[in-house]
Amino acid sequence: MAMIANSNILLGHGSGGRLSQDLFTGLFARYFHNPVLDQRTDSAVLQLSGKHLAFTTDAYVVNPIFFPGASIGSLAICGTVNDLAVAGAVPLYISSAFILEEGLPYSDLEKITADMAEKAREAQVTIVAGDTKVVTKGACDKIFITTSGIGLLKPEHIPISTGQNIEIGDKILINGPIANHGMAILSKRYNLQLQTDVVSDCAPLNHLIAAVLQAGCEVHFMRDATRGGLATVLCECVEKKPFGMFIDEALIPVDDDVRYLCEMFGFDPFYMANEGKVVLVVKRAHAEQVLAVMQQNPLGRHSTIIGEITENPVGKVGLQTLIGGKRLLEMLAGDPLPRIC
Amino acid sequence: MAMIANSNILLGHGSGGRLSQDLFTGLFARYFHNPVLDQRTDSAVLQLSGKHLAFTTDAYVVNPIFFPGASIGSLAICGTVNDLAVAGAVPLYISSAFILEEGLPYSDLEKITADMAEKAREAQVTIVAGDTKVVTKGACDKIFITTSGIGLLKPEHIPISTGQNIEIGDKILINGPIANHGMAILSKRYNLQLQTDVVSDCAPLNHLIAAVLQAGCEVHFMRDATRGGLATVLCECVEKKPFGMFIDEALIPVDDDVRYLCEMFGFDPFYMANEGKVVLVVKRAHAEQVLAVMQQNPLGRHSTIIGEITENPVGKVGLQTLIGGKRLLEMLAGDPLPRIC
Repeated sequence: MAMIANSNILLGHGSGGRLSQDLFTGLFARYFHNPVLDQRTDSAVLQLSGKHLAFTTDAYVVNPIFFPGASIGSLAICGTVNDLAVAGAVPLYISSAFILEEGLPYSDLEKITADMAEKAREAQVTIVAGDTKVVTKGACDKIFITTSGIGLLKPEHIPISTGQNIEIGDKILINGPIANHGMAILSKRYNLQLQTDVVSDCAPLNHLIAAVLQAGCEVHFMRDATRGGLATVLCECVEKKPFGMFIDEALIPVDDDVRYLCEMFGFDPFYMANEGKVVLVVKRAHAEQVLAVMQQNPLGRHSTIIGEITENPVGKVGLQTLIGGKRLLEMLAGDPLPRIC
Repeated sequence: MAMIANSNILLGHGSGGRLSQDLFTGLFARYFHNPVLDQRTDSAVLQLSGKHLAFTTDAYVVNPIFFPGASIGSLAICGTVNDLAVAGAVPLYISSAFILEEGLPYSDLEKITADMAEKAREAQVTIVAGDTKVVTKGACDKIFITTSGIGLLKPEHIPISTGQNIEIGDKILINGPIANHGMAILSKRYNLQLQTDVVSDCAPLNHLIAAVLQAGCEVHFMRDATRGGLATVLCECVEKKPFGMFIDEALIPVDDDVRYLCEMFGFDPFYMANEGKVVLVVKRAHAEQVLAVMQQNPLGRHSTIIGEITENPVGKVGLQTLIGGKRLLEMLAGDPLPRIC
């Protein structure tokens, strides 16, 4: 696990998969360790004068900066909103730091800014702080954006981010088809001439999630399936836990054109990034109600139950494959598509 | 003021001076506008369930990443801590998002991480959230870090960040000599062989500032003099206000070797970045007490009173020059040293 002192940073260290975990454990957790960071949740849960806050940050380096369905701007808002929402928090405030390459067309920056404003309105969050740095031409690729977010957390939702209440029998849900974002980026990056555009699923999920929580359903864990894809989120959910998970591949929605593209390029949709998909682990008895609530939301119309928490395989994800076999689902190792978000 | 639609981003748009202001006014404020952002303070002041928070973000792109006295890591912590502190807040939590270039030596990242941990300890803040992205070689220059911070603000300190209580007669103080950070970067960037190293003043100022506030002194405004230098901070302080400021150049501390370097390269120390200097505007009657408190802190030993708020020149900064003349001090226009922080 420990990195060798004379090694170099690899693309995989930013993949959101195994190497990202190694870098966190071997370096950041070692130097920065504190009770909050050590929870290793997507959003930090903070107590401030008796109130509970969620606090999160993400850097966006997606290439290309414009792609079907979204841009780096929409991504920078939705990604941070979703990180707060899956912690059970109500996203409120966003900060945004821009790193711009000298010579970036002003019109590109304006389009990106407009996308950010639109998604912030949609998510009902306020962009309250910002910073802009410009680097000489060639010192960065067009534009990078880092957003941070603050959300308010009800005490009863605090256990969601660590998943400490997950129990055997819990049902696992997802709000729609996977791999659309990854394939939208791929099709734009390589200028594929497709009959129909594959469109990114980039969207703020906070209203969908709020509807589930407000319905009084018992949610034990949530995570948005971004870098590393659905497989990585599922693996993280049970890793080092005294229980496992079983997923039925036939129940996982994948759009036909996305599946076709994945097969053509040899990508597994399980590992492709999403930007508008949330995985929920909910109390078995509440699963059907959660499903019904989700399906009423435009962003959850294609929600399905894809599996459940099981006794075995302990700490692992078992998969019933499409062709009738069974195998373990592994976390992402390398990085199939760098700069996906 | 409005940017032309077919123009491009210039280095000056990230300088912290006039062009940065234009970009904010002409673009970000236009699309994102809301009562908090419209205050244009360094830290956003938020109300959350009856508590007041300060929230800020900054991207760090300094080149080189290691330089006399500090690194991009120490800068990323101190800069954000100081932005919270000058808003009158007690800095508590920091998030950190890394953008790494593929191939960055792991040992460099470890040194930077260690510097961040050390400065966080010194400032007594906790790094609670993070993110790491890796881009292909050539898509960024080694490492960029964006930190965001949350601080707690007492209600009586809220007016500090907007400077709404500034009044004619207030005294203006600074906690030591200027331009050291800018010149440290310059000497390292151009590999100058100097007899004595010019060392960056990078330091967390929160304890120094807390001492002043705890002494019960009436502070009307504070700002750390980073990008754009002392001149830009002073200009911003009185811009569009019904009063002006008068500064005596002879009272502004500049170390001999820094002054020498500035003269050699044709830089004006007034516009050089600092990373451990705070400008305070304090009630006239409290100025001597503030000075005494500051001088007791190691980071304020060379504190001085450099001028005062005056009736004229309205909205401008008047300067009594070293050679006995008088002139107006202008805000930074271009960018004398890009990637200074």
